[in-house]
Amino acid sequence: MNILDQKFAEFHELATEEKIECFTKNGRLFDMIISQQLNRKIIDNIYEITNRIRHISKTRAGLLFLQSILSHKRVMLYFAQPSSRTFLSFENACHILGMKTSEIRDARVSSEVKGESFDDSLRTFSSYTNLIIIRHKEQDMAERAAWLLNTCTNRPVPIINGGSGSDQHPTQAMLDVYTLQYSFAKQGGLDGKTIMMCGDLKRGRTVRSLSYLLKNFEDVKIIYTAPQAFQMEEDVCSFLEKHKIPFHIETEALDNVLSEADAISGKTDTSKFKLRPSDMTKIRPSAIIMHPFPRRDEIDVAIDSDPRAIYWRQERNGMWTRAALIAYIFNVHEEILNY
Amino acid sequence: MNILDQKFAEFHELATEEKIECFTKNGRLFDMIISQQLNRKIIDNIYEITNRIRHISKTRAGLLFLQSILSHKRVMLYFAQPSSRTFLSFENACHILGMKTSEIRDARVSSEVKGESFDDSLRTFSSYTNLIIIRHKEQDMAERAAWLLNTCTNRPVPIINGGSGSDQHPTQAMLDVYTLQYSFAKQGGLDGKTIMMCGDLKRGRTVRSLSYLLKNFEDVKIIYTAPQAFQMEEDVCSFLEKHKIPFHIETEALDNVLSEADAISGKTDTSKFKLRPSDMTKIRPSAIIMHPFPRRDEIDVAIDSDPRAIYWRQERNGMWTRAALIAYIFNVHEEILNY
Amino acid sequence: MNILDQKFAEFHELATEEKIECFTKNGRLFDMIISQQLNRKIIDNIYEITNRIRHISKTRAGLLFLQSILSHKRVMLYFAQPSSRTFLSFENACHILGMKTSEIRDARVSSEVKGESFDDSLRTFSSYTNLIIIRHKEQDMAERAAWLLNTCTNRPVPIINGGSGSDQHPTQAMLDVYTLQYSFAKQGGLDGKTIMMCGDLKRGRTVRSLSYLLKNFEDVKIIYTAPQAFQMEEDVCSFLEKHKIPFHIETEALDNVLSEADAISGKTDTSKFKLRPSDMTKIRPSAIIMHPFPRRDEIDVAIDSDPRAIYWRQERNGMWTRAALIAYIFNVHEEILNY
Repeated sequence: MNILDQKFAEFHELATEEKIECFTKNGRLFDMIISQQLNRKIIDNIYEITNRIRHISKTRAGLLFLQSILSHKRVMLYFAQPSSRTFLSFENACHILGMKTSEIRDARVSSEVKGESFDDSLRTFSSYTNLIIIRHKEQDMAERAAWLLNTCTNRPVPIINGGSGSDQHPTQAMLDVYTLQYSFAKQGGLDGKTIMMCGDLKRGRTVRSLSYLLKNFEDVKIIYTAPQAFQMEEDVCSFLEKHKIPFHIETEALDNVLSEADAISGKTDTSKFKLRPSDMTKIRPSAIIMHPFPRRDEIDVAIDSDPRAIYWRQERNGMWTRAALIAYIFNVHEEILNY
Repeated sequence: MNILDQKFAEFHELATEEKIECFTKNGRLFDMIISQQLNRKIIDNIYEITNRIRHISKTRAGLLFLQSILSHKRVMLYFAQPSSRTFLSFENACHILGMKTSEIRDARVSSEVKGESFDDSLRTFSSYTNLIIIRHKEQDMAERAAWLLNTCTNRPVPIINGGSGSDQHPTQAMLDVYTLQYSFAKQGGLDGKTIMMCGDLKRGRTVRSLSYLLKNFEDVKIIYTAPQAFQMEEDVCSFLEKHKIPFHIETEALDNVLSEADAISGKTDTSKFKLRPSDMTKIRPSAIIMHPFPRRDEIDVAIDSDPRAIYWRQERNGMWTRAALIAYIFNVHEEILNY
Repeated sequence: MNILDQKFAEFHELATEEKIECFTKNGRLFDMIISQQLNRKIIDNIYEITNRIRHISKTRAGLLFLQSILSHKRVMLYFAQPSSRTFLSFENACHILGMKTSEIRDARVSSEVKGESFDDSLRTFSSYTNLIIIRHKEQDMAERAAWLLNTCTNRPVPIINGGSGSDQHPTQAMLDVYTLQYSFAKQGGLDGKTIMMCGDLKRGRTVRSLSYLLKNFEDVKIIYTAPQAFQMEEDVCSFLEKHKIPFHIETEALDNVLSEADAISGKTDTSKFKLRPSDMTKIRPSAIIMHPFPRRDEIDVAIDSDPRAIYWRQERNGMWTRAALIAYIFNVHEEILNY
C-alpha cells in the first residue's frame, strides 16, 4: 500500500457531497463519475443538447459542423473491462464531435500487465489526451482516476465513468433518463411516472445509477421487481427514503405489477422475470419498454416490433447523450444550441 | 431457433435474383453481398471510379478532396474472423474517403461472447454507424446481416461482405477484375482472355466470386487447376454452363496448362501446384500472375521481380477498388468523376 | 532461408555508415532506425520543431493548423510487441499532425500468425499507408523493414523504429535528449553535463540509444550504474572510447555517484539501485531525474512531487518529439517553424 493508496482510502470515506466537489471545476461538471453529480438543471441541459445534436446531424452540413466542435481534442478510451456496446457508443459520440480517439480494449495489451500501476497508466493517458473514458471491472476505479488527476497532478483532464465495478454506470442512467423524457414529452415528461426496474438489481450498476437520477424528478414512483436474492441494495433504498421517493419491492412475479408501470427497464437472468409476447397485453398501451442490452433471452425478439419496445432507439440515444455530455463538459454546448 | 432464424431460413431458400432484389434500393446497389449483384455496367463504373481515385490521390489537394467526400460518415469494421490484409485495405479505403472508423477485430472483445446474438450485434452497429463491413468465418452471415437490416428494421445501413465463410468474397473478386481490366487495357481489355485459377478451389471463396463475375465479359475462358479433391464445386460449374462460359478442369499439373493462360490467379497448398522460378519460362511473356495472399510458399519470392508478377499492385488495387465501391454505394461517385 | 534472408544477412554485416546511407534519401533522413543516424544538426532541428509544436498546440487555432499539416497521410502502427505507452505516444503524435492511423497491436490478430512472412506483411502495410512505425520483440526487424522497402520495392515508405529487440529504441533516446536540452536550457544546454544511467544497461535499448546520441554533445560525461551482470555492453563502450566520451562504470551502489550527476536516467530491477525518498538529499538541487517507465517499484511515488522529478514531463515530451520527427521526415517542418 503506497502513499496514494492511503490518501485515496481517506478520500473514498468522504461524504458524497465532498466527493462531488472534487469532480467540479469553476462551478461546472468536470468529471462524470457518479449519478449524484447530476442535478435537474444539468439533466435538462443534456436533454436540450441531445435533442439539438440529433436534429443537426440530419444534414451533411450539420454533421460537418458538429465535427468541427472538438476536432482539436484527443480522447483515450480505456476499457480494461471489454464492452463493445458502450465502447462503440462512446467512440462514435467522440467521432460525431470530431475528436481523435485512442483505445485500450484488451487488458492483455495494457501496460498494467507489464507491472504498471493503475495510477501510472492513468497519468500516461492524461499526458497524451484531453479526455479519458474509463471502464473497469473493479469498483471505484473511475473515482480513483478523477481523484488522482485532480489532486495529485497539475494537468488534470476530465474523466468519464463508462462503468466501474458493480457500483455505477452514470452515462447509462443518463441515456435512460433522456429516453424517458423524450418518450413522455407529450405526456408531461418524466415527472409523475411509475418506473419499474427488473432483473438483477443487486449487481446492476445501471439500475443503481438510474435510481439516484430519479430523485431529480417530481412524484416519480419506482417498482423494483426481482427475486429476493437479487433485490436492490440497502444504500440505494436509504437514499430513496431520505429523498422521499416512493418505491415498491416486488419479489414474486412480473405479472403482479406489469400493469402499473409507465416504463419498464429490464435486465433479468431468471426465467420468472422474462418478458414474453403474451405479457404484452398486460402492459399499458402507453407504457414503454427499455433494456440496456445484451438481452440474452430476457426479451423475445417477437416483441421488437411492438411500438412500446423502444430499446433500440434507447441504445442509439446512448450515442447522442454521450456526445451531449462531452460537449457539456468541454463547455462548447452553447455553440451547438446556437447553431 | 427464434422467429428471425425461421424467416431467414425462408429468405435463404429464395432464388439468387430475389435475394439481389433485397440488396437493392431505388434501383441501385445498396448492400454488396454476392458477386452476382455486379453487372457489366456496375463493373465498368467501378473501374472508372477506381482509376479516377488513383489519379486524384497523386496530389495533396486531391487527397484532401477525396477525404471531404464522406467525412460526415461513420463506418463499422466488424471482423469476427481476423484478417489484417482485408481489414487494412478496407480501413484505408475508408480513410481515403474521410470516413471515421470503428472496429471489432477480435471475437473475444465482442459482445457475441457475452451472450449477444449476431442479430443484436448487427443492429447495434447500425445504431451507431452509416456502413458495416463484415467478415465472418461462418457462411451467409453477410447475407443475414443485410437481410436483417433491410427487412426487420426501419433504419438499414449498407452492408459490405468482406468474406463470409467459404461462400463468397465479392470485393476480392472485384479487385481481381479491376486488376485484369487494368492490366489488359492496351490489349482489348478482359474480354477474350483465358483466366487460369489454381489452388484450393473447393473452399476458395475468392475464386468462386471471381468465376461469377467473369460472366460479365465476352469470350472469357476459365481453367481450373487443382487436384480432384480441391476442384471447383458443382454450383459454380453449373452457373458457368448455364451462361455458356467455357471452362476446363485440370487435375494433373500446372505444366499442362501454364502456357495457355493470359492470367494466373493462384492460391494453392499443394506442392505440385507451386509456382517456381523455373516455371516462368513456360508462362506467356504477356501473361500476368495474380495472388490474393498470404502466399505461404506458393510463389517463390524470386518471382516478385518478374514484370508479370503483379500481385503487389493487385493488393494495392484492393484499397482503391474498395474506396470506389463505397463511393458508388453512397452515390457520391459523380463528385469524384467530375473532379 | 530464402533469397531475401541471404541478401539481408549481407546488408546486416555492413558498417554502420553504409547502413545509414540506405536509410537516407536526397541527403535527408528517410527512415529512423538507429541513433547513429542523428547528427547534431538534426538533433537541434528536432529540438526547435518540438518547441514550436508545443507552443502552437496551446491554442485551438494552432492545433487545427498542426492537424492540417499531414492530414492527407495514412500511418501504420505495427506493434508486434505490445507497448501501450510507446504506442499511444506515437498514435497521438500522428493525430496531432492530422494523420489517419491503422494499427496492429496484437500478434494474434496479425497475418504473421496465418503464415505470412514478416517481409510480406511489411510490403502489405506499405501498399496501404505512407509511414510505418514498427515495434518488434526480435532484434533488427526495423532495420530489415527499412532495407526491404528501400532496396527490394519501388514504392518505399519511411520506417520509424519504435523499439526492436534489445538493440535500439532511437525515438526514446531522442525524447531523452530533448528533455535534457530543455531542462538545461538556462544552464548552457546539455554540453558539459554528467549523465548517470542506471538499471539493466545490458538489455536496456533506451540507454544504448541514448549513449550513441550523446556523442553529438561537447564535454558530456556518462556514469553507468548497475551491478556487473547488468553493465553496459562492450560495443557501446568501444563507441564511446572511439569518440573520446568519458564514462565511468559504477557497480557498487547508487550512493557513491548520486551527487555527481546533473541528470539521472533510471530503470533498475535490483533493490540496491532503487530510488528512495531518502536518496533525494544526496542528489544535486539542480539535477533532474528521468525514467522511461514503467517504473515498477524503482522510483517511490512520493518522489513524484519533487521538482527534480521530471519523468512525467519527459513522457509527454515523447509525444511532442515524435510529432516533430514525423514532420521532419515528411519535410513539412518549415511550415511549422514559419507558423
